[in-house]
Amino acid sequence: MTTPNRQVVLANRPTANVDAETCALVTAEVPELAEGQALIKVSHLSIDPTIRTWMDDAPGYLPPIGIGEVIRSGGGGVVVESRSDRYQVGDVVTGMVGWQEYAIADEGMGAMAKAPVGIDLPVSLNVLGITGMTAYFGLLEVGRLKEGDTVVVSGAAGATGSSVGQIAKIKGAGAVVGIAGGPAKCAQLVEELGFDAAIDYREGNVSRRLRELCPKGVDLYFDNVGGAILDAALANLAMRGRVVLCGAIAGYNDKSAAPGPANLTSLIIRRGSMEGFIILDYLGRWPEAQAEMAGWLAEGRLAHAEHIVDGLEHAPDALNLLFTGGNTGKVLVKVS
Amino acid sequence: MTTPNRQVVLANRPTANVDAETCALVTAEVPELAEGQALIKVSHLSIDPTIRTWMDDAPGYLPPIGIGEVIRSGGGGVVVESRSDRYQVGDVVTGMVGWQEYAIADEGMGAMAKAPVGIDLPVSLNVLGITGMTAYFGLLEVGRLKEGDTVVVSGAAGATGSSVGQIAKIKGAGAVVGIAGGPAKCAQLVEELGFDAAIDYREGNVSRRLRELCPKGVDLYFDNVGGAILDAALANLAMRGRVVLCGAIAGYNDKSAAPGPANLTSLIIRRGSMEGFIILDYLGRWPEAQAEMAGWLAEGRLAHAEHIVDGLEHAPDALNLLFTGGNTGKVLVKVS
Repeated sequence: MTTPNRQVVLANRPTANVDAETCALVTAEVPELAEGQALIKVSHLSIDPTIRTWMDDAPGYLPPIGIGEVIRSGGGGVVVESRSDRYQVGDVVTGMVGWQEYAIADEGMGAMAKAPVGIDLPVSLNVLGITGMTAYFGLLEVGRLKEGDTVVVSGAAGATGSSVGQIAKIKGAGAVVGIAGGPAKCAQLVEELGFDAAIDYREGNVSRRLRELCPKGVDLYFDNVGGAILDAALANLAMRGRVVLCGAIAGYNDKSAAPGPANLTSLIIRRGSMEGFIILDYLGRWPEAQAEMAGWLAEGRLAHAEHIVDGLEHAPDALNLLFTGGNTGKVLVKVS
Repeated sequence: MTTPNRQVVLANRPTANVDAETCALVTAEVPELAEGQALIKVSHLSIDPTIRTWMDDAPGYLPPIGIGEVIRSGGGGVVVESRSDRYQVGDVVTGMVGWQEYAIADEGMGAMAKAPVGIDLPVSLNVLGITGMTAYFGLLEVGRLKEGDTVVVSGAAGATGSSVGQIAKIKGAGAVVGIAGGPAKCAQLVEELGFDAAIDYREGNVSRRLRELCPKGVDLYFDNVGGAILDAALANLAMRGRVVLCGAIAGYNDKSAAPGPANLTSLIIRRGSMEGFIILDYLGRWPEAQAEMAGWLAEGRLAHAEHIVDGLEHAPDALNLLFTGGNTGKVLVKVS
């Protein structure tokens, strides 16, 4: 007897937000397990902006998702059947599960990690997953945060951005300024997450506000958005300032937008640097970071919020939230 | 009795190329020397693109030249009078002489260095001056050249670019590709300067040519121009490729041009970095670099060309040459 497996597959390549035209709900069958494999009943999907980039037929750090293939995605679930010594039925695991009800965990490629015990899976997928790891390594390794640094982060109310700001404070940054959209998000940054100040980019001149809030310039700018806000940060870079390019969400959906920063000469005048990174490069070092982040969680020093969308069929809407700014906190889809 | 001192001063701030409207020839008097000063009869001016940036009323790495002030410029000359133990009459010195016939050398601020003996002053101002030092430290320190690297340099037939390519070959780069304007300059790069290949940007698709010539991608791109060529290089960056931002000459004269690179996401996908620098930061280390460069000169391993414009009054035209590409080699003005 076979088990049906509902999946969301890439039907057509999107040019803007995803919809029923580009992401189709289909029902496949759960395949027979081979030796060394385990069957995972997916519980939650981690919805990350990078998923949108995998849908484009463009060179990236991973091959594009093929037409008809399940949308690639992180997530977690529980082992319901196993032909591997590595996975016991009942284990909660995380990894690249894809937008589907059942995923296969393998021992080699497609291996999944056991989720830490005592931390809810959604929190784990947020703070100890791609999101938290991106904040941690981007800020500390790529950005080389130094004590006393003036740190600015865009997309600050988002899952990555809010962790960046909090980790910066924990690690001894001087002022931490968040850039976000709307007064509610800005208030939350300062009142709940311990940011020193927030800039509402919808209010207008970000560059002028940065100049007021960071009179000595920005030592470290963690960029989640690209476009005009990156330009404003470049204009306010301190001597030897560092820009960490995490993602340029401004350009993911609208290829015609965001011509790139006009203020690149700031990098010359201020001897600045700009560096991109992909969090998968740090996979081998996730455990050390996860241990430190779990410690901060336990001590209550790391606030976090999960925005959970119910139902696999709403995964495309959940992805769109990241681009419309409709979420508060880490977007996850509850599958089962 | 006073000595007249012809000078070129900034009369009005230019918006494009400089002309008689923006750079005025005036005659001042040579001031009395104070204790610790020496009088330099200027022999040659070093004409560098950065002079154009100093003419703008915009924040830079040095204050803008004031209206009515002598145009700031490197150069060299001979000591004709001295009230300092540091300078002997007859010494040939180099430093910031300005666009004028006579300059004051001081012991503190405004100090000048003795030019190396046995090397013509124009060659010295080229290979051992701002130009050669920019090539040396930009490539080796900022760019961290590694053996076997595929190196691309724009403005390759210019004074800095031609040194960059040659130093890269001497230091063990794999392929060295130069980008320049016109078939004559491109032929010179390959036939006389030892570049492995050249791209004529006037011929069209620089990105496609880079893809053909650098199939494994560009490990180190030394950018002298900014704009569309920087974008093409970013599109062809190798994994962990480095971009050295030396100057963005494309934008110096035309502020409306060059919106900045659209391909910045390459830095994320390829884990690349981009860094700017100012050669004055390396002043303390010039002697070690000058010694090494002088050695290569003596061994005949470093070809160089000087484009000498005769007469102080033609200094503005000499500066414009850098932007029209009308020069071959390092532009200098012979003053006396």
